[in-house]
Amino acid sequence: MSDQKTAIHPRRDQDYPAWYQEVVREADLAESSDVRGCMVIKPWGYGIWENIQRVLNGMFKATGHKNAYFPLFIPLSYLAKEAEHVEGFAKECAVVTHHRLEAAPGGGLRPAPSAQLSEPLVVRPTSETIIGASFAKWVKSYRDLPILINQWANVVRWEMRPRLFLRTAEFLWQEGHTAHETEAQAREETEKMLQVYTDFARDYLAVPVFSGEKTESERFPGAVQTLCIEAMVQDRKAIQAGTSHFLGQNFSKSSGISFLSRDNKQELAWTTSWGVSTRLVGTLIMVHADDDGMVVPPRLAPTHVVILPVTPKPETREAVLKAARELADQIRQHMFHRVPVEVEVDERDLPGGAKSWEWIKKGVPIRLELGPRDLEKGSVALSRRDRPTREKTFPSVAGLAESLPALLQEIQDQLYKNALALREQHTVKIDSEAEFYAFFTPKNSNKPEIHGGFALAHFGGSRDVEEKLKSDLKVTVRCIPRDVAPEAGTCIFTGQSSPQRVVFAKAY
Amino acid sequence: MSDQKTAIHPRRDQDYPAWYQEVVREADLAESSDVRGCMVIKPWGYGIWENIQRVLNGMFKATGHKNAYFPLFIPLSYLAKEAEHVEGFAKECAVVTHHRLEAAPGGGLRPAPSAQLSEPLVVRPTSETIIGASFAKWVKSYRDLPILINQWANVVRWEMRPRLFLRTAEFLWQEGHTAHETEAQAREETEKMLQVYTDFARDYLAVPVFSGEKTESERFPGAVQTLCIEAMVQDRKAIQAGTSHFLGQNFSKSSGISFLSRDNKQELAWTTSWGVSTRLVGTLIMVHADDDGMVVPPRLAPTHVVILPVTPKPETREAVLKAARELADQIRQHMFHRVPVEVEVDERDLPGGAKSWEWIKKGVPIRLELGPRDLEKGSVALSRRDRPTREKTFPSVAGLAESLPALLQEIQDQLYKNALALREQHTVKIDSEAEFYAFFTPKNSNKPEIHGGFALAHFGGSRDVEEKLKSDLKVTVRCIPRDVAPEAGTCIFTGQSSPQRVVFAKAY
Repeated sequence: MSDQKTAIHPRRDQDYPAWYQEVVREADLAESSDVRGCMVIKPWGYGIWENIQRVLNGMFKATGHKNAYFPLFIPLSYLAKEAEHVEGFAKECAVVTHHRLEAAPGGGLRPAPSAQLSEPLVVRPTSETIIGASFAKWVKSYRDLPILINQWANVVRWEMRPRLFLRTAEFLWQEGHTAHETEAQAREETEKMLQVYTDFARDYLAVPVFSGEKTESERFPGAVQTLCIEAMVQDRKAIQAGTSHFLGQNFSKSSGISFLSRDNKQELAWTTSWGVSTRLVGTLIMVHADDDGMVVPPRLAPTHVVILPVTPKPETREAVLKAARELADQIRQHMFHRVPVEVEVDERDLPGGAKSWEWIKKGVPIRLELGPRDLEKGSVALSRRDRPTREKTFPSVAGLAESLPALLQEIQDQLYKNALALREQHTVKIDSEAEFYAFFTPKNSNKPEIHGGFALAHFGGSRDVEEKLKSDLKVTVRCIPRDVAPEAGTCIFTGQSSPQRVVFAKAY
Repeated sequence: MSDQKTAIHPRRDQDYPAWYQEVVREADLAESSDVRGCMVIKPWGYGIWENIQRVLNGMFKATGHKNAYFPLFIPLSYLAKEAEHVEGFAKECAVVTHHRLEAAPGGGLRPAPSAQLSEPLVVRPTSETIIGASFAKWVKSYRDLPILINQWANVVRWEMRPRLFLRTAEFLWQEGHTAHETEAQAREETEKMLQVYTDFARDYLAVPVFSGEKTESERFPGAVQTLCIEAMVQDRKAIQAGTSHFLGQNFSKSSGISFLSRDNKQELAWTTSWGVSTRLVGTLIMVHADDDGMVVPPRLAPTHVVILPVTPKPETREAVLKAARELADQIRQHMFHRVPVEVEVDERDLPGGAKSWEWIKKGVPIRLELGPRDLEKGSVALSRRDRPTREKTFPSVAGLAESLPALLQEIQDQLYKNALALREQHTVKIDSEAEFYAFFTPKNSNKPEIHGGFALAHFGGSRDVEEKLKSDLKVTVRCIPRDVAPEAGTCIFTGQSSPQRVVFAKAY
């Protein structure tokens, strides 16, 4: 890296975790609150999440799902029903024990001792158990199946080491929950939603992912099979960006989701669940942001184009503002990927440089500067967020508006190409344990160093090996990928036979 | 009422509260959960809420607001800061006291004693205090104002007597929160959002409302002024459908939202908040549903048109289904009030009568029946939900699709007219206390009887009178209306002078 001044300090290569925090702050995406582990999602960050919601909602609807809403609170007894599930989740939950406050004897407020709940309520960490209770009521016969439901909701998992967007006590997500007549149908649903996530990651997040299956030790508590998508971020670690679980009949059994089959027998339904969360915003930052701040893929940007009027002299100010507003109106007439191009004229009374840097740090895809001289020439100064900060082109205003959708798509494609190039550069086939350890060990142990990447290696499936790699290197099997051609070999750790390479990485 | 058979038992005139519950159930809108006071919003009910969200979101955006998201949990100390606010809200809250569960000695789970929070957290009953803490960080100078934020969220207020949609422990809502430089700007915002709600109620809910100001005793805890919209439902009671609060500097003071003014002085910001909730779905039911079930105003209907294929004989089945699907495709090409007409072909293998009644009870605006004979004649049997169940017309299929948007608007307009007629019929000017008491007293005290309505009467503003009316008749001042021409007079209770009539009613 050169010593060129950057908007974000430290840079990625200097201190990646600190860089991440600074991007979140400088791009005005989110901030911590006084409530441990809970974040405030600011308008720019929430706008990205709203676009994620809008697109996924359309994809869920196109695959036959309907939205519904289930209670925030789960009775303690529900959680205790599914043994594996409770083992995986019960530990870190927000527990409601009282339903009233009263004045405390020493001043202030306290939970009223007289209003203690007879059964504590858990703030949902995930909703399989509470939704299962409804499904049990809804399903009587095979005619009532499948049930294809999605919920947009907040969930809470107490976190000791929170990180904005990546790991917060409260986060926003969608959770799909479906019930089916046959195992084959439920497995097909699990695969279908994995494909939806894979397509969404590629086409909207501009993030290439490996999609595949988790090993037993990384499975969702209570699932028979967990499928996932895994992305590489710029410090070459993996981030799990979405999961789709085949739950077999485990939750049907504990919730009592049974139905009269075509053969007139009482049978248990087969269920699935699948979800993505506000962690996707963290994924976007980690994959696309640079040393000048956030870079938002155009298809998810709350604002596609910002117009920055340059008004050095009072006498030309009105003409410039008028031209800027007219240009904005023209741009809004055009559609980019099914939505009108979102354009904002930043008329705030602030120095031009400060305004421009704000938008760079926010990662708006296209900036247009328009001053008195541009007005004379009939052109604007155009900057793309995927290009170096100082690079400008000077297109004519005539014809500019209609050219922007194609330019936005070009930026979208470029971001995907960049992310794919990074991943390809740092995804290696590894064929020995020594090579594996070397790959995941930084050269310089004095300071944090970006190292490693995705290792494609043969693995025999031993849980002991997984434990050892986690403890030695903090490396885990991210998935048994679907996207990598099967190739028989032998496990590099045990010599057992292996039908295909799996993806190993350090992970968020 | 005649003795004609109806789909909902009991009828409105027999037992209005029981009728309401049956409509919610039979229209598949929502159901109770095992968690006291928390409801499950089923897809049809949630679909209506999603349309409410979509439309209001557009109106909020058009008035300059942006969405954001703030924590679910509020530290106890925040709530204690604003004395009036805590007095109004603190009592019935869900209180989180632990952050972990553990195996209980006797089996099952319990909150881990070692994981007790040092400061209990309250599940937000409303977010003034937690959002105020963020605004305090965001605002430094007058240049940072106004802040115009909206949040879509779930909130919890413990309810001892829950009723689906109308009063539930957890409900979904939007809460707008804004901060301004001057009192005038904040007051203007409060009025502007009241107008947004009034317009929304009229144009989308098809509900006429009185809009105006609450008396001091009905104000939001901590507000200087509470504005509201009040609708009349079919048992002639009032329902508060939305509120907009001018908070003065009360919350700014307790949260520390101060800024450097244009005069270089440190000043407190002026704030507002405003909200509507899933209670609007309850309002729709109470205003529009009838003895055959729900009636959804077309502009908020998740499905505008259902096509019911009539397939008595196997040999004509495929031809009928094909024609139904083709008709659906034609209908989808047309727009109704900025969205494509939503049409569903109900191909389920159920008796035709049962299917038809399901859709009547759900309140889909238009039903189209299409059978082999219709196919021969090139027509369909069309039923409007705002007309008697058995009434049908037989339009030609040619030209039908393009005629539906106008028909949907006609139904929308008719629902508004019906609601307005009901309100006008039961809104009376009352000029004596005796007349007032008579108006609000049922004739027959043996069984519940629909009686009363809205009384427009002169009122001098005495809090004692308000208390007495509440205790004697369960009647309250719903609002000091903006929509009723001022007319000087004397209070019918005290003889004090009164600048205008106010709206009295029993209320939900």
